[in-house]
Amino acid sequence: MEVLLRIDPLSSEALHRQLYDAVRTAILTGRLRPGDKLPATRVLAEQLSLSRTTVAEAYDQLQAEGYILGKHGSGTYVAPDLPEDASLAVNGRVHVRRSAEQPSFSQWGQKIVSGEYLHLARPEEPGDVEFDFRPHRIDGDRFPWQTWNSAVERALEHAREGLLRYPPSGGYPELLTQIATHIARHRGVNCFPEQIAIVNGTQQGLNLIAELLLQPGDHVAVEDPGYPAARLVFGTRGLQVTYVPVDGEGMEVDRLVHRQDIKLVHVTPSHQEPTGATLSLGRRLALLDWAERSWCVVLEDDYDSEFRYEGRPIESLQGLDSSGLVVYAGTFSKSVLPGLRIGFVVLPDHLVQPFVMAKSLWDSGTSVMEQAALAEFMASGEYERHIRRMRRIYRDKRDLLVTALQRCFGSHVLVGQRHGGLNVLVQFNLPYSEQEIVLRAGAAGVYLQPGSRYFAQRHDPPIFLLGFGGPAANRIEAGVTRLASALVPATQSSPVA
Amino acid sequence: MEVLLRIDPLSSEALHRQLYDAVRTAILTGRLRPGDKLPATRVLAEQLSLSRTTVAEAYDQLQAEGYILGKHGSGTYVAPDLPEDASLAVNGRVHVRRSAEQPSFSQWGQKIVSGEYLHLARPEEPGDVEFDFRPHRIDGDRFPWQTWNSAVERALEHAREGLLRYPPSGGYPELLTQIATHIARHRGVNCFPEQIAIVNGTQQGLNLIAELLLQPGDHVAVEDPGYPAARLVFGTRGLQVTYVPVDGEGMEVDRLVHRQDIKLVHVTPSHQEPTGATLSLGRRLALLDWAERSWCVVLEDDYDSEFRYEGRPIESLQGLDSSGLVVYAGTFSKSVLPGLRIGFVVLPDHLVQPFVMAKSLWDSGTSVMEQAALAEFMASGEYERHIRRMRRIYRDKRDLLVTALQRCFGSHVLVGQRHGGLNVLVQFNLPYSEQEIVLRAGAAGVYLQPGSRYFAQRHDPPIFLLGFGGPAANRIEAGVTRLASALVPATQSSPVA
Repeated sequence: MEVLLRIDPLSSEALHRQLYDAVRTAILTGRLRPGDKLPATRVLAEQLSLSRTTVAEAYDQLQAEGYILGKHGSGTYVAPDLPEDASLAVNGRVHVRRSAEQPSFSQWGQKIVSGEYLHLARPEEPGDVEFDFRPHRIDGDRFPWQTWNSAVERALEHAREGLLRYPPSGGYPELLTQIATHIARHRGVNCFPEQIAIVNGTQQGLNLIAELLLQPGDHVAVEDPGYPAARLVFGTRGLQVTYVPVDGEGMEVDRLVHRQDIKLVHVTPSHQEPTGATLSLGRRLALLDWAERSWCVVLEDDYDSEFRYEGRPIESLQGLDSSGLVVYAGTFSKSVLPGLRIGFVVLPDHLVQPFVMAKSLWDSGTSVMEQAALAEFMASGEYERHIRRMRRIYRDKRDLLVTALQRCFGSHVLVGQRHGGLNVLVQFNLPYSEQEIVLRAGAAGVYLQPGSRYFAQRHDPPIFLLGFGGPAANRIEAGVTRLASALVPATQSSPVA
Repeated sequence: MEVLLRIDPLSSEALHRQLYDAVRTAILTGRLRPGDKLPATRVLAEQLSLSRTTVAEAYDQLQAEGYILGKHGSGTYVAPDLPEDASLAVNGRVHVRRSAEQPSFSQWGQKIVSGEYLHLARPEEPGDVEFDFRPHRIDGDRFPWQTWNSAVERALEHAREGLLRYPPSGGYPELLTQIATHIARHRGVNCFPEQIAIVNGTQQGLNLIAELLLQPGDHVAVEDPGYPAARLVFGTRGLQVTYVPVDGEGMEVDRLVHRQDIKLVHVTPSHQEPTGATLSLGRRLALLDWAERSWCVVLEDDYDSEFRYEGRPIESLQGLDSSGLVVYAGTFSKSVLPGLRIGFVVLPDHLVQPFVMAKSLWDSGTSVMEQAALAEFMASGEYERHIRRMRRIYRDKRDLLVTALQRCFGSHVLVGQRHGGLNVLVQFNLPYSEQEIVLRAGAAGVYLQPGSRYFAQRHDPPIFLLGFGGPAANRIEAGVTRLASALVPATQSSPVA
């Protein structure tokens, strides 16, 4: 008998009854068919580590009910005619799955399965590569595991009551207070802790805001080049997306000022994704002024703002907002750990209740254990110390990367703005397409992430977002040298394009 | 000067530059108005713990750019006429927030803010009450903190690489394997680990399935009485909800068999929420047969299935399904901790990729730390030991509750099915309305959760879902006695209704 029969020795139910059920179900669902031979009681008892009496009891009941037949001298078989109450099941259900007639998807689901948006999804993690310049990676070797682990330990001690309940709406109060203090001090965000809602990463905040405020067909604006996940969220929701060009001062806000139909704009003012530009104060004020005149919600995604290496940090849009139109979103994916799914949004008063209810309806709140651990980490001062330390480490790694790129590639490379974050945008002036560069780099053991996914339209020459967060400092120069050896000689000897 | 100026001594930016920015921004946003007097350099230096030179430098630059004016012998003032590049900001933005003209909500958002569905949301946690019979609470005193904490510790050790990355799509592989083994063994669920997707609780699974498969206006079916959160999710999404009555054998499936228009049915077959009924095998087969004929997705919510005290457990619907129409949902909220937001869904093949992408699009995956900790807890065998131990504890507490109810209320109480879970459905035959019972109980220090939220329509006489998981065993009888003293005497002396 090929059919798996599951018997649970820990169950409170008698073993013979379990076996009876398992065989009966196998018959009813067609896994055992009329005429199939069953194993002898002794054999089955051994296979399932049951006593022979147990198996015999089950067989007796199955035979009494007409599911199986014992033939003297020949063995036990599934009955050719099943009991009447079983016929519906057997007649109706024993046939091959008709996979062509699958249940249909929603409009959103159709967009998801179409593959049309696949290039905007988070790229697959590459396998083992020698030099991994993926963007947005943190430096794992420098993560203060001991400090973090003891914050988790303290949380498990202090937050027991909290862990025994569903998470409080909005978030774990100690964490809300820590965040409010931190962002007031470092980002000029004006808020009470009650205006903060914890989410499982910025992405969830973006989705909840979109679900709460936008109907399919509504107009939204995003930066171009810009954050792929924002375009993914808006595109799959059937929104009309306006792409606003970006220059050295960030989003070109003046392109928006005559639009009255845009309901939400997504912007990365501290550190434009992917160019690294900082939205100038003049543009910030113009953006807020326009948003107020057209009642457009401004979603300020302040990712990476912790890592600024020079130049003047500019106060958040939220801190400049006097109309309650800015939703500020922050994340701990880079400043603590990406595997920790905690982000937050700061909401204007009138959106607090709707957002918190939307979050609660979606997933009943974010894990208390993580929230409590992060609150402990922040309250102890370790979070700020960690940020300060990593800022120096990342600044040095950025310098190593930029210096190596300029040394190895000379005029073949153009390195973008680099006063903050964990990546630089790099343009290679080489006679290769994006794909050729990726393949040549890959063959030489260097992983590069193509930049085309950041652009609404094809971009020439090819651009890459190179991360310096992940690789160890002493590997950066070697990686760039390797990359150059795969790309540069060709430009001097045998141009391909 | 009432305006808060934020200076960050940890910032890499010079202090005088920070102060310059802070004052300039305050002027541009109208927090400081033309003619406002600024504090003397000495005073401000003291307030902000800066040197007087720093303040003087900032004031000098502000004055050079025309933002402020120094008047000899009188002090320093915001300039009456601001520099030209600032005028847009000041003219456009310095006015009171027009709260009447808030951005509009989506149709979903409107349903959320309307309050129409508020009674279906998770009820607020009550404050301190002497006897708390809320349903779905676990026994915190018996939770194996030490074992859990050491699972977390091991996870932080073993899962470092995982924590440094975004969570893998679908879930943390070790956890998927543990879950697949557990549910095959105990719930008769047939699946490969790859068919499992981790979600932040069942609620998120329900939302993702609905978002993926259903359009507003589509028909769905739910049990009545039934899980309020399912009705909340479906109602706010603009779906047409059919309520299928429940009797002692669970959902009355024969009410559905002539319907061809239902795209999804939500069902709790192991332990019907809230009646505790088990869907009979005959009905399971009939449900699957109908679902296959009408291509209806069956969302099997197997909550509470770990805690079954007697009677035969019946194999999951998923294990009986041969058409790939069942989505099985499980949770660790009761079997481990509610503050741990981990649930999972088992998907038929053709839904695996769409679901995983939907989850990734929504929040980039569930926390690695929690997933790894749970995987350690399961792999060590502690999870099964915990379940077995709690099953005995909860069974005893259930007996205490039921015995006390029958002793104290006699014929005034009808206790529903009770072979599993953490609650019993109780009908009080008393001359009081639901609200009167809640208030009288509350005044006597007993928290009861009204059952009306489980019903599509008003239900008489009033029904309550009483939880025995939370209160300590030695408090259960005292709580019921207290409840009876608040409710029963009146029925004998002064009927109110």
